[in-house]
Amino acid sequence: MKNIKIETEDGFELVEGGVCAAEGFKANGIHTGVHPDPSKNDVMLLYSEIPCETAAVYTENKVKGAPIIVTKKNLERSGGISKAVIANCKNANTCNRDGEEKARGMCDIAAKALGIKSEEVIVASTGVIGAPFDITPIKEHIDELKAGLSRDNHLEAEKAIMTTDTVPKEIAVKFILNGKTVKLGGMAKGSGMIHPNMATTLNFITTDTAIDKEVLHAALSEVVAVTYNCISIDGDTSTNDMVAVMANGTAGNDKIVDVTDPAFDVFKKALFIVMRNLARMLAADGEGASRLIECYVNHAKTKDAAITAAKSIIRSPLVKCMIFGSDANWGRIMCAIGYSGAEVDITKIDVDFESEAGRVHVSENGFGVPFSEELAKKILSADEVRMIVDLKDGNSDAYAWGCDFTYDYVKINGDYRS
Amino acid sequence: MKNIKIETEDGFELVEGGVCAAEGFKANGIHTGVHPDPSKNDVMLLYSEIPCETAAVYTENKVKGAPIIVTKKNLERSGGISKAVIANCKNANTCNRDGEEKARGMCDIAAKALGIKSEEVIVASTGVIGAPFDITPIKEHIDELKAGLSRDNHLEAEKAIMTTDTVPKEIAVKFILNGKTVKLGGMAKGSGMIHPNMATTLNFITTDTAIDKEVLHAALSEVVAVTYNCISIDGDTSTNDMVAVMANGTAGNDKIVDVTDPAFDVFKKALFIVMRNLARMLAADGEGASRLIECYVNHAKTKDAAITAAKSIIRSPLVKCMIFGSDANWGRIMCAIGYSGAEVDITKIDVDFESEAGRVHVSENGFGVPFSEELAKKILSADEVRMIVDLKDGNSDAYAWGCDFTYDYVKINGDYRS
Repeated sequence: MKNIKIETEDGFELVEGGVCAAEGFKANGIHTGVHPDPSKNDVMLLYSEIPCETAAVYTENKVKGAPIIVTKKNLERSGGISKAVIANCKNANTCNRDGEEKARGMCDIAAKALGIKSEEVIVASTGVIGAPFDITPIKEHIDELKAGLSRDNHLEAEKAIMTTDTVPKEIAVKFILNGKTVKLGGMAKGSGMIHPNMATTLNFITTDTAIDKEVLHAALSEVVAVTYNCISIDGDTSTNDMVAVMANGTAGNDKIVDVTDPAFDVFKKALFIVMRNLARMLAADGEGASRLIECYVNHAKTKDAAITAAKSIIRSPLVKCMIFGSDANWGRIMCAIGYSGAEVDITKIDVDFESEAGRVHVSENGFGVPFSEELAKKILSADEVRMIVDLKDGNSDAYAWGCDFTYDYVKINGDYRS
Repeated sequence: MKNIKIETEDGFELVEGGVCAAEGFKANGIHTGVHPDPSKNDVMLLYSEIPCETAAVYTENKVKGAPIIVTKKNLERSGGISKAVIANCKNANTCNRDGEEKARGMCDIAAKALGIKSEEVIVASTGVIGAPFDITPIKEHIDELKAGLSRDNHLEAEKAIMTTDTVPKEIAVKFILNGKTVKLGGMAKGSGMIHPNMATTLNFITTDTAIDKEVLHAALSEVVAVTYNCISIDGDTSTNDMVAVMANGTAGNDKIVDVTDPAFDVFKKALFIVMRNLARMLAADGEGASRLIECYVNHAKTKDAAITAAKSIIRSPLVKCMIFGSDANWGRIMCAIGYSGAEVDITKIDVDFESEAGRVHVSENGFGVPFSEELAKKILSADEVRMIVDLKDGNSDAYAWGCDFTYDYVKINGDYRS
């Protein structure tokens, strides 16, 4: 269960191309030798000749990868303008004494090859923490990497940041803004160490929309809170992850400079569709995952209560195991709500399970109700399972996404470094 | 790896007898029919003819099992005096519409048989949440349960509260208080759904010490914070768990009525030894666990920072998988400290791994140092593995205990209800 249903809305047409769907973006990914497997792409480059207004959010982990620190500094120095992304897998370049030097080195290598400034480069790394990192292979292969930059090579770029991911994750949409056709697309890598309250995973999003970076940042912050920050694979929050959005403005729409501009809402909706789908792909492809779990908490007193409850349920290892076993042990959902700290009235809570196999109502006002175990088993055996929690306490709602815990999760993470 | 090394201190002699080690306590456990397996004890009774000063701490989960609610009310009504405990496995009596009625019913059944008041009974249940609970079998077998009460049957009682536990957990110590020999012992059931900030699991502790209930509560609160609340099996906090300490005073020591009494410190030390060992047993016997992990965080700026960091490391599924795979991927420890929220200076942190196979220094001041992978593998393959984190930032320390994540954890929790 890796390829999930893509969801869009009227007015937002799914298109091919990922991060190269938007005009003016080229990408490439190759094997340089950072990864020992010669068949594995290990470094990617993404490039826009036109300068991009850029917004980024980063991990909230106190231990931050050197690439995070360098990217932050670069965007400060460039005034929020970027032209390229360079990223690698296999080595996180984190907790290394020479980490920042190496991360800056990667920017310098990319900048020199592209003829741009080093601070116009976003740098990212994913992989093992604390392992010595040799960037010589990147330097030696930068010309080859640059030579292959094209609108067709977005998938090669995506493959270069995959670690334990089993499928590439890309999506793009086309929509109309002030009469102009614009596009917005993204790529993501995920798998383990994914948990709320962080930028989670490496995510690069590109658009040809003309939009100011402050406004872009406002949209990103809002959307990340209800998408990426609502995924939990294992409760671990990584040291390296970021979401960066680059907007080069080539679509020629009237530049969005204010959050009150109606075009802002349309843009935000596009960003939401792209990020929500990437979030679902990340959850479905969690390490060892055999199915996607979606938790929908409705009628919460506050947005915060809805998000807190939904995340707590998705994070619970006992809930994850329950889904793995297709066992309708709904008490574990109540339990996870109970310890979440969310403001709820437990005597009002209803719980349902739903999937393509149907829907079953398992508890009402905090107490169990009789239900068909046979139907429940069938519902919980589907590839995509939804837990619906009705708090009957207000008007706020939230989604969270995760996956089941499987034997394979344990296996993958028992020997991650090898 | 289920039977761990028991640790005691000078002046506290390990003795047999568990909850019946202290004078005046009798126990029993039998099969009544609450559990479908006729070979499984399912209800236990613990009794002291002499009234006991009683202190208890309960789950902090908002969703509380009916037995928790009833026990709290009973102790309020009895003025903190108890004489008996009745407890069952297989059904948690939680999220049931008639839960409190059933829990009170269990107290009534025990009280009638023992000729005591219903509010002098502590009631506890563990098992599936939200399943209908029939207490008729308990009523029908109460005379048999009572008839078997003896100082020898503590292990039968313990067996009646075991769920996915693979070994019974008991310990008792003998020590001198004001020239009198006193004893303190306990039993615990654990396994899954165990996580900090709760009373965690069912734990009954008895002593013949003469001690006032307020002072007893002070000791319990202090000790629980650094023992049971520092275990994490899976990050899930249960709905039903409690620690109750009953003191019947038959040892005849001068009653401890003040926390400034030097005898209070001696008593507290005994409680600490018993609860620390039970905590380690609970961690080592976590669902599917193949080994015990101890995390020692030293030289923290504050006690809170030490506890927060230690718990976060122990809770991390990625750390748990790393230990399962004997893989010295120490970056995951840094990562877990980083997202814990603990007040630490990450540029000062040293990390070591230690076990009976030796000790290896893997990172210094937040960065990796060269180490022997071969030695590390040997150390991490031991039954008891210690992670030592030196924050070099102050004078506080804390321990936390957990276990590795294994294939069996997933298996056990995929079909818990069957």
